[in-house]
Amino acid sequence: MIEDLAEATICIIGLGLMGGSLAAALRQRHCCREVIGVARRAITLDNARAQHYIDLGYSNLAEGVRGADIVILATPVCDIIAKIGQLSALVKPGCLVMDLGSTKQDVCAALDQLPLQVEVLGGHPMCGKESSGLEEADVDLYHDKVFILCPLARTSEQALSLGRQLATAVGARPLVLQSERHDTLVAAISHLPYLLAVALVNSAEELAHRDALVWQLAASGFQGASRLAASDVTMMLDILLTNRAPILASLESAQNQLTALRSALQAQDMQTLSELLGAARTRRKELNP
Amino acid sequence: MIEDLAEATICIIGLGLMGGSLAAALRQRHCCREVIGVARRAITLDNARAQHYIDLGYSNLAEGVRGADIVILATPVCDIIAKIGQLSALVKPGCLVMDLGSTKQDVCAALDQLPLQVEVLGGHPMCGKESSGLEEADVDLYHDKVFILCPLARTSEQALSLGRQLATAVGARPLVLQSERHDTLVAAISHLPYLLAVALVNSAEELAHRDALVWQLAASGFQGASRLAASDVTMMLDILLTNRAPILASLESAQNQLTALRSALQAQDMQTLSELLGAARTRRKELNP
Repeated sequence: MIEDLAEATICIIGLGLMGGSLAAALRQRHCCREVIGVARRAITLDNARAQHYIDLGYSNLAEGVRGADIVILATPVCDIIAKIGQLSALVKPGCLVMDLGSTKQDVCAALDQLPLQVEVLGGHPMCGKESSGLEEADVDLYHDKVFILCPLARTSEQALSLGRQLATAVGARPLVLQSERHDTLVAAISHLPYLLAVALVNSAEELAHRDALVWQLAASGFQGASRLAASDVTMMLDILLTNRAPILASLESAQNQLTALRSALQAQDMQTLSELLGAARTRRKELNP
Repeated sequence: MIEDLAEATICIIGLGLMGGSLAAALRQRHCCREVIGVARRAITLDNARAQHYIDLGYSNLAEGVRGADIVILATPVCDIIAKIGQLSALVKPGCLVMDLGSTKQDVCAALDQLPLQVEVLGGHPMCGKESSGLEEADVDLYHDKVFILCPLARTSEQALSLGRQLATAVGARPLVLQSERHDTLVAAISHLPYLLAVALVNSAEELAHRDALVWQLAASGFQGASRLAASDVTMMLDILLTNRAPILASLESAQNQLTALRSALQAQDMQTLSELLGAARTRRKELNP
C-alpha cells in the first residue's frame, strides 16, 4: 500500500456534505495526487467538478475505485455497509478502504469481511450538521474537528498512519478509538440530542394542534434546542438501526433524568431540583458556547 | 395615568440581562423622559450609569419608584411577586406597574392585589438568553422579538396602549395574550427545551463517570442542543415553581414522545420511526434556522 498521502489517488464515494467537504479540502489543500468522486447523479458530479472539488467523477462504482489508493465511503451508514460488500472485487490490492459513517461497529464488521489484501480503517469525523447535500459542502468543515479513527485488529500501522495523515491534512484532529467505545460515546453525545430534538418538536406540534400560536413564539432558545431535528431522515434511520443498543441505553438514561426532574417538580422539592439544574449548569458552562 | 410614553419617567427594578437591555434601549432610542434603575448592588448601578443605560440609580426601592409613571419589574419571578407586595405603598396613583417575568399567571395574580388606583399589566419579552447579568445587556436585545402583554380584567385601555408603546419603542412586536394561555405555550416552547437540555447534560455526565472522553467529543450538535442548560438556576427555579402544572404536562408529553421513539427503535419498526423523524424534520425546517 501507499505510505504517503501526497502520492495517493483518493476516491470518495458519496458527494454530500461530508464527502463533498472532504473532497474540497483535499483538493484545495493539495493533500493528494488526485481526488475522484463517485455519485449516483450526473448533476452532483457536474457540480463537484464545476466547484473544483474533484478531478474526475464517475457514476459507476467500479470505474471510480479502480485506480484508487484510498477509497472513502461517505454515504449513509447502511449504504456504506452495502457498498463495502461490492468493493472486494473492485479495488486494487493494497488499497485502503475507509468510511466516514456515524456508527462504527457494524461498519467495521463489514470492513472485516473484505479480502486481506485490502487495508481497512473505520473513520468518523465529528463535524456533521443538520443540513446535507453537496450544496452545503464547506472546505473548512473539518477544520479543528475531532476525526475519530477506528482500527480493526487487522488494520496495519501504515493504514492507521495514512488515516492520521488524511485527518490532519484537512485540518482535523485524529483520535483513535475502538468501535464499541465510539458507538457508546456518540449515542450519548450525538444520537440522544437528536432524538430529544425530535421529541421536543413533536411535543410542541402536539400542542400546536390545540393552539397554533406555538410556532410564532418559538424563539432562539427553542430553535437552538431543536435544530438537530432537521437532520436528514435516511441518514438518521441508518444511525439508529446500526447503533440500537447504545441509543436505547442513552434514551433510558435521559428518561430517568426527566423522571427525576418531574418527580422533584411534582413534589416541589426545590433542593433536589436546584441540585439537578446546578449540576447541569456547571457542566455546560465548562463546554464551549 | 400618563398616556404618552415619551413623557414617562420609567423605573426598572433589576438591571440584569432583561432590565439592563430594556433600560439601554429606552435611553438610546430616547423613548421616554427619564430611566431610573433600581438594583441591590452599588456596583451594578455604577456600571449602568457609566454605560449610560440609566439617568438615575437607586438601591432603595422606595426612592427609585417614588416619581415613576411606569414601574417595570425585571428580577426573577418569585422576587417580582415579592416586590409587587411592597409597591402598593410606594408608587404614585396612576402609576403603571409592569413586569418582564417568564411566567404570567402567578405574577398577574399578585398584580391584581395592588390598589385599584395603580394600573397593572403583565409582560414577557421573548428574548431571554442562557447568559445573564448587566454585562450581557444588549441595546438590541428586544429588536424584532415578540413582547407578550398579559392584561388583567382590570387593565385599562390606556395601560395596555402604554405597554404596546413600550414594546414597539424598543423594537419588539407586542402580542396580547391571556396569562393562562401564555403559561401553557411557554411551557412547551421555553421551559421544556430547558429541562431537556438539563436531562441531556446530566445524562452525558452519567456516562462521563465511566468514560471521561464524552466531553472531548461534544461537538456543535451537542452544544446547540444543550445550550439552555447553562441558564441561571435561580431564574429557572422560579419559573418551574410558578408554572408547575403546564411544565409537568409538557414533560409528560415529551416523555411520551421519547417512549414512542424508544418502542419503535426497540421493535425495529422503521416505518413508525421514519414517520416520527420525518414529521419533526418537516416542522423544524419550517422554522428559522
